[in-house]
Amino acid sequence: MRIIVDAMGGDNAPLEIIKGSIEAKAEYGIDITLVGDEAVVKKCALDNGLDISDMQLVHASEVIATDEDADAVLKKKPDSSLAVSMRLLSEGEGDALVSAGNSGAICVGGTLIVKRIKGVKRPGFAPILPHFEGGCFMLLDAGANIDSRPEMLLQYAVMASAYMEKVMKIDKPRIGLANVGTEEHKGGELQHKTFELLKNSGLNFIGNVEGRDLPSGVCDVFVCDGFTGNLVLKTYEGVAKSMLKKVKELFSKNAKNKLAAAMIMKDLKAMAKQFDYNEYGGAPIMGTAKPVFKAHGSAKAKTFKNAIRLTKEYVEADVITEISKALSKK
Amino acid sequence: MRIIVDAMGGDNAPLEIIKGSIEAKAEYGIDITLVGDEAVVKKCALDNGLDISDMQLVHASEVIATDEDADAVLKKKPDSSLAVSMRLLSEGEGDALVSAGNSGAICVGGTLIVKRIKGVKRPGFAPILPHFEGGCFMLLDAGANIDSRPEMLLQYAVMASAYMEKVMKIDKPRIGLANVGTEEHKGGELQHKTFELLKNSGLNFIGNVEGRDLPSGVCDVFVCDGFTGNLVLKTYEGVAKSMLKKVKELFSKNAKNKLAAAMIMKDLKAMAKQFDYNEYGGAPIMGTAKPVFKAHGSAKAKTFKNAIRLTKEYVEADVITEISKALSKK
Repeated sequence: MRIIVDAMGGDNAPLEIIKGSIEAKAEYGIDITLVGDEAVVKKCALDNGLDISDMQLVHASEVIATDEDADAVLKKKPDSSLAVSMRLLSEGEGDALVSAGNSGAICVGGTLIVKRIKGVKRPGFAPILPHFEGGCFMLLDAGANIDSRPEMLLQYAVMASAYMEKVMKIDKPRIGLANVGTEEHKGGELQHKTFELLKNSGLNFIGNVEGRDLPSGVCDVFVCDGFTGNLVLKTYEGVAKSMLKKVKELFSKNAKNKLAAAMIMKDLKAMAKQFDYNEYGGAPIMGTAKPVFKAHGSAKAKTFKNAIRLTKEYVEADVITEISKALSKK
Repeated sequence: MRIIVDAMGGDNAPLEIIKGSIEAKAEYGIDITLVGDEAVVKKCALDNGLDISDMQLVHASEVIATDEDADAVLKKKPDSSLAVSMRLLSEGEGDALVSAGNSGAICVGGTLIVKRIKGVKRPGFAPILPHFEGGCFMLLDAGANIDSRPEMLLQYAVMASAYMEKVMKIDKPRIGLANVGTEEHKGGELQHKTFELLKNSGLNFIGNVEGRDLPSGVCDVFVCDGFTGNLVLKTYEGVAKSMLKKVKELFSKNAKNKLAAAMIMKDLKAMAKQFDYNEYGGAPIMGTAKPVFKAHGSAKAKTFKNAIRLTKEYVEADVITEISKALSKK
């Protein structure tokens, strides 16, 4: 199996990306193609004593920044590491692609360059988030598509269910529909129509789910229009992060508090780790014809290695074929 | 000033509502009308040694539960404590209304019985939330209206700005528009049109705000369509609550952890208090012709007293006239 890695994407590229790739290659026995500015990548490896001689290196002269406009940037920068990675994948030069770069551009490129699975209306951005009972759930769409139709939400559910079952090994993933209340009549037309479709989908649909129930892990998949999903994702992560920061501040406030912190350090670290979304590695793009995986923008080597592992499992579980089959039945 | 209190609304009615009303009356020198089942209210007061002889008591034979369908329930239960309270307010028998009952029914009753301020398209549900830097912000609409138009979002901003300035004493409240990114072009048609309206509104519009920035208090008002607002509100509260619960569990895990907790108890309590949305008392309904205030459903006496104080300030600051003036200028 060959995984294509966008060596220039993310806050810590290329160093942490290269490191994570080397570790993943050693641990998982896969082939890696690094895509990025050849001189920069080689110098970075050399300066840090990293051996990349057993990886393929494909040159790409441009880099897409995280804040560049996703809709236009791939056309504007056809020789960017991301665009080149996408083309390599689409041309069969690898089995999957991982990037820690611009999420929007990854979604757009996934749709336009890698192309969609036959029958998929719109690929969705599908981050996997930790909940507070020791597991995780998939939220989609988290912003790939601002406007959503009921058929798109149904497809998100079908695709996410396949992923959570095959890759995350969750039996009959519980599908929840984002809504303002749990009763069937809640929400607007989009929710009413989607509710009907999900009820008759053969999926393990558990009904409407409210924002307040996400932390307790009531569902394995939270289906949502992309606008709301993006707001929910960032609120979820933002509140958890801010709260951990406050707890840390409290514990370093003075000598007494530091002593108290030392006493429970092990438990504190375990708690912080449970909330750490980096543990889950990132977000698959659901609906592209070949596996595309978005690693966290802030990913360091360990998180990026983890993202490569999930991508490998995305390939091995043959989720794409599962999705094709499931969609052709609808 | 006379404040009408729905004595039967909320998880802890009527006892905590009566207690909070007695405390508020003593502390703020206001007149109170309690609305509820006369026999139940009187017995509750008697059983608990509470003197309600100096408050007006208006009988209402029915009670609306929290989970009843908001759209139909006021017609179905015309003699409910909430419906009677709303009619009293609309007939001039009081200056404002506070209820800890069914949020949806309060919004519907506010619109249909209390009626709207002239020019207001749709009243909004506007909870005030603590952020993590020691202040608070207003989020609206949090679910009164599932579908929103740009003109409605503009009105929400105008009304919230008046409230935050007059009642919460924030100079030139910073208005943020809920969006999936901070750049002006982000979002869909609703966001683009609202952005234009807000830019030219004369309000202190600071642009688009993402979910992740809410905890750090980047804005005083977070303007949102009701569907997304409801999901964001409940995600925000849900994550904060779950996390506090986890911290508490950690500290009571064993003797060593309990000792550590005892060492920093004062700081821990201060932190929990900062995150406690009960401190802010609840949510005004913005756009009704007279002040209507929703106290938290779980409100106990202290929180309910606080809600009455905020309602009194809502009346005294004459926010309704401010809103009328501001809207007539548009």
